[in-house]
Amino acid sequence: MRVLVIHGPNLNLLGEREPAVYGTETLAQIDAQIAELAKNLHLDVRSVQHNSEGAIVDELHAARGAYETVIFNPGAYTHYAYAIADAISAIGIPVFEVHLSNIFAREEFRRKSVIAPVCAGTIGGFGVDSYLLALRAAAHKI
Amino acid sequence: MRVLVIHGPNLNLLGEREPAVYGTETLAQIDAQIAELAKNLHLDVRSVQHNSEGAIVDELHAARGAYETVIFNPGAYTHYAYAIADAISAIGIPVFEVHLSNIFAREEFRRKSVIAPVCAGTIGGFGVDSYLLALRAAAHKI
Amino acid sequence: MRVLVIHGPNLNLLGEREPAVYGTETLAQIDAQIAELAKNLHLDVRSVQHNSEGAIVDELHAARGAYETVIFNPGAYTHYAYAIADAISAIGIPVFEVHLSNIFAREEFRRKSVIAPVCAGTIGGFGVDSYLLALRAAAHKI
Amino acid sequence: MRVLVIHGPNLNLLGEREPAVYGTETLAQIDAQIAELAKNLHLDVRSVQHNSEGAIVDELHAARGAYETVIFNPGAYTHYAYAIADAISAIGIPVFEVHLSNIFAREEFRRKSVIAPVCAGTIGGFGVDSYLLALRAAAHKI
Amino acid sequence: MRVLVIHGPNLNLLGEREPAVYGTETLAQIDAQIAELAKNLHLDVRSVQHNSEGAIVDELHAARGAYETVIFNPGAYTHYAYAIADAISAIGIPVFEVHLSNIFAREEFRRKSVIAPVCAGTIGGFGVDSYLLALRAAAHKI
Amino acid sequence: MRVLVIHGPNLNLLGEREPAVYGTETLAQIDAQIAELAKNLHLDVRSVQHNSEGAIVDELHAARGAYETVIFNPGAYTHYAYAIADAISAIGIPVFEVHLSNIFAREEFRRKSVIAPVCAGTIGGFGVDSYLLALRAAAHKI
Amino acid sequence: MRVLVIHGPNLNLLGEREPAVYGTETLAQIDAQIAELAKNLHLDVRSVQHNSEGAIVDELHAARGAYETVIFNPGAYTHYAYAIADAISAIGIPVFEVHLSNIFAREEFRRKSVIAPVCAGTIGGFGVDSYLLALRAAAHKI
Amino acid sequence: MRVLVIHGPNLNLLGEREPAVYGTETLAQIDAQIAELAKNLHLDVRSVQHNSEGAIVDELHAARGAYETVIFNPGAYTHYAYAIADAISAIGIPVFEVHLSNIFAREEFRRKSVIAPVCAGTIGGFGVDSYLLALRAAAHKI
Amino acid sequence: MRVLVIHGPNLNLLGEREPAVYGTETLAQIDAQIAELAKNLHLDVRSVQHNSEGAIVDELHAARGAYETVIFNPGAYTHYAYAIADAISAIGIPVFEVHLSNIFAREEFRRKSVIAPVCAGTIGGFGVDSYLLALRAAAHKI
Amino acid sequence: MRVLVIHGPNLNLLGEREPAVYGTETLAQIDAQIAELAKNLHLDVRSVQHNSEGAIVDELHAARGAYETVIFNPGAYTHYAYAIADAISAIGIPVFEVHLSNIFAREEFRRKSVIAPVCAGTIGGFGVDSYLLALRAAAHKI
Amino acid sequence: MRVLVIHGPNLNLLGEREPAVYGTETLAQIDAQIAELAKNLHLDVRSVQHNSEGAIVDELHAARGAYETVIFNPGAYTHYAYAIADAISAIGIPVFEVHLSNIFAREEFRRKSVIAPVCAGTIGGFGVDSYLLALRAAAHKI
Amino acid sequence: MRVLVIHGPNLNLLGEREPAVYGTETLAQIDAQIAELAKNLHLDVRSVQHNSEGAIVDELHAARGAYETVIFNPGAYTHYAYAIADAISAIGIPVFEVHLSNIFAREEFRRKSVIAPVCAGTIGGFGVDSYLLALRAAAHKI
Repeated sequence: MRVLVIHGPNLNLLGEREPAVYGTETLAQIDAQIAELAKNLHLDVRSVQHNSEGAIVDELHAARGAYETVIFNPGAYTHYAYAIADAISAIGIPVFEVHLSNIFAREEFRRKSVIAPVCAGTIGGFGVDSYLLALRAAAHKI
Repeated sequence: MRVLVIHGPNLNLLGEREPAVYGTETLAQIDAQIAELAKNLHLDVRSVQHNSEGAIVDELHAARGAYETVIFNPGAYTHYAYAIADAISAIGIPVFEVHLSNIFAREEFRRKSVIAPVCAGTIGGFGVDSYLLALRAAAHKI
Repeated sequence: MRVLVIHGPNLNLLGEREPAVYGTETLAQIDAQIAELAKNLHLDVRSVQHNSEGAIVDELHAARGAYETVIFNPGAYTHYAYAIADAISAIGIPVFEVHLSNIFAREEFRRKSVIAPVCAGTIGGFGVDSYLLALRAAAHKI
Repeated sequence: MRVLVIHGPNLNLLGEREPAVYGTETLAQIDAQIAELAKNLHLDVRSVQHNSEGAIVDELHAARGAYETVIFNPGAYTHYAYAIADAISAIGIPVFEVHLSNIFAREEFRRKSVIAPVCAGTIGGFGVDSYLLALRAAAHKI
Repeated sequence: MRVLVIHGPNLNLLGEREPAVYGTETLAQIDAQIAELAKNLHLDVRSVQHNSEGAIVDELHAARGAYETVIFNPGAYTHYAYAIADAISAIGIPVFEVHLSNIFAREEFRRKSVIAPVCAGTIGGFGVDSYLLALRAAAHKI
Repeated sequence: MRVLVIHGPNLNLLGEREPAVYGTETLAQIDAQIAELAKNLHLDVRSVQHNSEGAIVDELHAARGAYETVIFNPGAYTHYAYAIADAISAIGIPVFEVHLSNIFAREEFRRKSVIAPVCAGTIGGFGVDSYLLALRAAAHKI
Repeated sequence: MRVLVIHGPNLNLLGEREPAVYGTETLAQIDAQIAELAKNLHLDVRSVQHNSEGAIVDELHAARGAYETVIFNPGAYTHYAYAIADAISAIGIPVFEVHLSNIFAREEFRRKSVIAPVCAGTIGGFGVDSYLLALRAAAHKI
Repeated sequence: MRVLVIHGPNLNLLGEREPAVYGTETLAQIDAQIAELAKNLHLDVRSVQHNSEGAIVDELHAARGAYETVIFNPGAYTHYAYAIADAISAIGIPVFEVHLSNIFAREEFRRKSVIAPVCAGTIGGFGVDSYLLALRAAAHKI
Repeated sequence: MRVLVIHGPNLNLLGEREPAVYGTETLAQIDAQIAELAKNLHLDVRSVQHNSEGAIVDELHAARGAYETVIFNPGAYTHYAYAIADAISAIGIPVFEVHLSNIFAREEFRRKSVIAPVCAGTIGGFGVDSYLLALRAAAHKI
Repeated sequence: MRVLVIHGPNLNLLGEREPAVYGTETLAQIDAQIAELAKNLHLDVRSVQHNSEGAIVDELHAARGAYETVIFNPGAYTHYAYAIADAISAIGIPVFEVHLSNIFAREEFRRKSVIAPVCAGTIGGFGVDSYLLALRAAAHKI
Repeated sequence: MRVLVIHGPNLNLLGEREPAVYGTETLAQIDAQIAELAKNLHLDVRSVQHNSEGAIVDELHAARGAYETVIFNPGAYTHYAYAIADAISAIGIPVFEVHLSNIFAREEFRRKSVIAPVCAGTIGGFGVDSYLLALRAAAHKI
Repeated sequence: MRVLVIHGPNLNLLGEREPAVYGTETLAQIDAQIAELAKNLHLDVRSVQHNSEGAIVDELHAARGAYETVIFNPGAYTHYAYAIADAISAIGIPVFEVHLSNIFAREEFRRKSVIAPVCAGTIGGFGVDSYLLALRAAAHKI
């Protein structure tokens, strides 16, 4: 099974950005953990990071025929990027929404996800484990 | 008269994406129909598609001096892309908003257009005919 | 194909009423243009105008079996006349909502249409051309 | 006891209109059932149907001195016709609001009744039985 | 100066309807007081009453060229009848909105007037004097 | 046919609690009337009363296989007890919501029912007759 | 009869302040017209102007026993000054709210009056005539 | 590590209740899967189910000192049970909120969780895997 | 005078739960202070604590005839438990709402009390003194 | 301990103003009761009354260094006077908000206090006892 | 050029009041810095401070003819004082709104300014520099 | 000190776009003024313009370590681009939000800034001076 991991906007700064909220691990370290678990689960994983809504739409489109599952941390696009939501609906691949932090325990605007309604499932609040749990969820679908 | 047709996000997947909502014609087939009618109406038409809000803003800016009318299907950007709305206000060319589906008969969030207030007119719900009617509307302005 | 055109409340004053918003053509002149295009498109058209919500409901009911398409400018009833919306749902004939002006560029209350969700399509902002485009849309359905 | 049954807008299409929602019985068949039960309950019943808000106001006014109870299915006027609500307040006769379908299980806008606050009671969701139950409620008041 | 007085829905029941709110005078008695003051002010007054929104729209249309001022008690149409508001905008005659009761001291829904924004002025809460004051206001315009 | 009548919170105080709103009959007297009519209609009825949301959920669960219809007065749980609404959806038995008073003529918060959307029908405002009418509605389903 | 006229905040600038909205007459000229009409109506009138909410509360308190009617233009306090509204409730003298302009045809925030619910009546949109009509309304109460 | 699994209201009907939404597995089958994975992960797990808000509060209180992690499917209490939320805050044990279905893709009222803000993390939409993923998340904390 | 003190949900954890918000005293210590003051004031006091909404409703019902005053800390039920509010209305005993913390200085959802409108008075923010002040208020009523 | 009692707008009319809501005692009588209890509690009390928001801000500022506690009945300023709220935050003295009536059982607008979030505690609904309880609360802080 | 600086409510406590939010400089120190920069910019500056809304209205009125620019820190009046907003509209002098803190990063209610729409410009978040920047903006207008 | 100036979407059209709102200066002319003042203030300034949200996020990321202050005119992204707001939070450099026009005096949607809460300060309404004042604010921080 091929799995695409998409890290949304600002996640390239992980480890440097607000460690109290997002932890001290860098994106490279997270991707390493993802790669390691994927290997154990016999999953074929590729990780990408984009700051642009359009680029994420493009990436999701390109996933058709190339991946069976997408694990997606939409970052702040969670709250307003309907174009990404439409892309998820359009591609017909199960997408799992993940968040490092518990978005429901933060600012009011973070409590609404326009992405969640078109995802297969959502996992949030477990730090890097949110990605790893999503990977396990994907593996279980095989 | 020169007419620019801008297809917004996810429209490149037409024919493959949710055919129950958007029909089975591909974007190439739609562009072919547009080109054919344009020829009959003696209009000079160019069609482009963009998934990025910024790219659409750029395209609209470039239309100044090059086109007399823009036909624009903003897709999901309809509902929140004020930067595109500002671009339409800025360029001083009449823009016609078109939608394949009747956005008022769908999810609640699709009923609000931030683009419509700055457009010259809107046409929605007629499938590919929405574009063709907009083309006729443009032709009538000559 | 038989097409019924229903002009809603206050449209009998067209040409006299707020020409800056609605133009200087009278309803008779608009109906003449509709008739002319209908002739060219080999459509059988009848135009009526009503100020009363109940009369519009009656007219829609009577259209069953007599017309294949209805072109309807609901005027101010656009924004609250659920009885008309129910009539449209009930009669099983495609109804095209048209507006002379771009209702999205006007007062806040004009941005909500209770009629649009039950219509096949909507066209607005093109002046009398809104009707003519709807006529073409109807013709295409033959 | 004299009872007036008022069928509101679009109910004349019953049996033909959206049978999945409103059932397959015609208004004549419903009125026949009402008449039969009324006879059994020794009630003097008259049934009318109106599509116009003004006509319903007139009918309610005329009921004063002529009927002891009104059974009223306001149809879509349920949701906005304050003039009818004022008429009910004004005439001083108990009015029972009935609905064929369960309006609370349908579109959001159908969940608000401006008529209910001025009625003596409401019955909804039982198909034609909604009327018959209201008739029994009226009979009990003798 | 010719003045048209339009009494809106349910006002024909005045004197009989909720006297605690609307007083004990009948509409005929009110019209008599209006006629008497009009005579003193050398105004030419005609009074009409309508329960139907469409009829009020028609009446307003007919006022063009026939009256210089309209005094209008919209009753419950105050709160939602945008078709009447559009008619007032369309006819280009100053319309004075009057109410017998103070609508701001009653139910929440009565605090919003869709008519007031298109009227020249509003008077409410003075019982029949609301009409008489409006008549004086009209006279002053001569 | 077996019918379960569930009286919700505070209904055990009937006859003593706010008689101006709820009448002077005690719950025992109401149950006696229900029993008598049930006998006439050849229905097998059991009545229970619970003040706890969880107990009502349990009671509804237990009704599966034991009753064909449930008549339910949810009292104040009407307005927020989604767990009860889910139980009604889950058990697959038609539930009729009844209210002694007209909840639409009372405080604002009483106008919203989270129970109604999952019920087969609703009856309110007829005092104890609300229950008796529901019983007749149940009988008719045999 | 003694009548107190209270001009609210900023009205001391009348004639100089936004004449397109408020006219070109000064407050002194308005007070002169008020005085003249009062004389004709045999009313004893005193006019004051205050910019401070507390001063208006004090003035209203002092009116007890000294005046039978208050004519009050609350200016911008119309929209939020609940302390003034409480003062009006407290003093037990009929207060007539007047406005020079039609506040319903202006900014959204001006459409809400916290003063109106506790006033006997309201008059707005007639320029200085708003005051004169209120004076006549007061005279009629003798 | 000791883990408490709390199944909220109506989950005892799993497998029988709306299988299109919640799947065909019974709660016993789910608990068996949980027990099996717990064994593999060397976790000490106990599962309970409650329909009453108060009982869930009690259960959470009792968890103090007895469990290191709580996995909690709050069912419909997700949306309004602030007493449960307060209990979670009070006990100082990490609580993981799980849902079988994707609550964001269902009715509007299910999109708001009053429980999520006080939980350590949330997992939803993966059917029984939601529980199993939460178990793994708990294991990882050792 | 007999006074019933009802401690609502989660208050059994006092002293252990979020001491920064609720203080370090245990419920037993608070009850001891209440008992001591009651003795001084010659009041007959009983204290109970419940986590279940239904149990609180039962307790309030049982208070009829047994107590002259109820002092009630509704905890999180403050914000949504209309069944408890109805119970308070039903029993006809003055109920004093108390809160340890100042609920208006905390989360948004805590600022709305559905209990307060049916209570005789409210005291909040004084820690255990909130109870003691309520006791004094009760004593004063003798 | 020195305590400042501030009576807000309109409270100078106590005993004369709406006795059904506020009781028949005058402010002087209330101040006498406050003085008497203060003497018993060995508190040094001064009472003032102001109708102006600015005067209350000044009074609060002046309290710094002169009083250890402020007891404040903000009257209608409760609902919007953020300048007073800021003054309370600024002075660093505990302020107790008191109300004679239960503001939660009155008009909707009275249910929101902008003052409460910055107060140490609130007491309402006990008539003059609200002040006396606040005095006791102050005394307890010594 | 003559510039009037108006410090709004509670600013007289600067340096003493919540230094974490407002800094440690006193108003006198701020005025000294303003005076010094004004001298350098050849501006004629006067600074005043008022706690009363009415006093600020008076001060603004008096500025007509005496000052060419007003620099105004409205403090808490920012959020509701429409009377001040009207005064600014009325006097026809450019007013610059300044805030020491970034009001958008604080409580929700501080994010709405009723003053800003009638000001020429706004500066906030720079501490005392907010005033100095406004002074430079004023100077540039010469 | 190094300062980065980011001009947001559509600002490249300055001087050509809606001069009534945005003035007649081109972006190049504005950048020239910025450069000149920067030279005087001994600041090292670079100006960039982007129409894409993602590009602005990238630019902000790249500013880390390269600039001490960012001056940012977010254009229409002001109102919804949470990804940009997160980028500002992430980079730990003070960002000053500037606007040419007074966004509070324009359309309703422009009054909400999702950027302001994470900025150090905001300046708006002074035309090109908004940038120059921000430059001075930056200089002052040295």
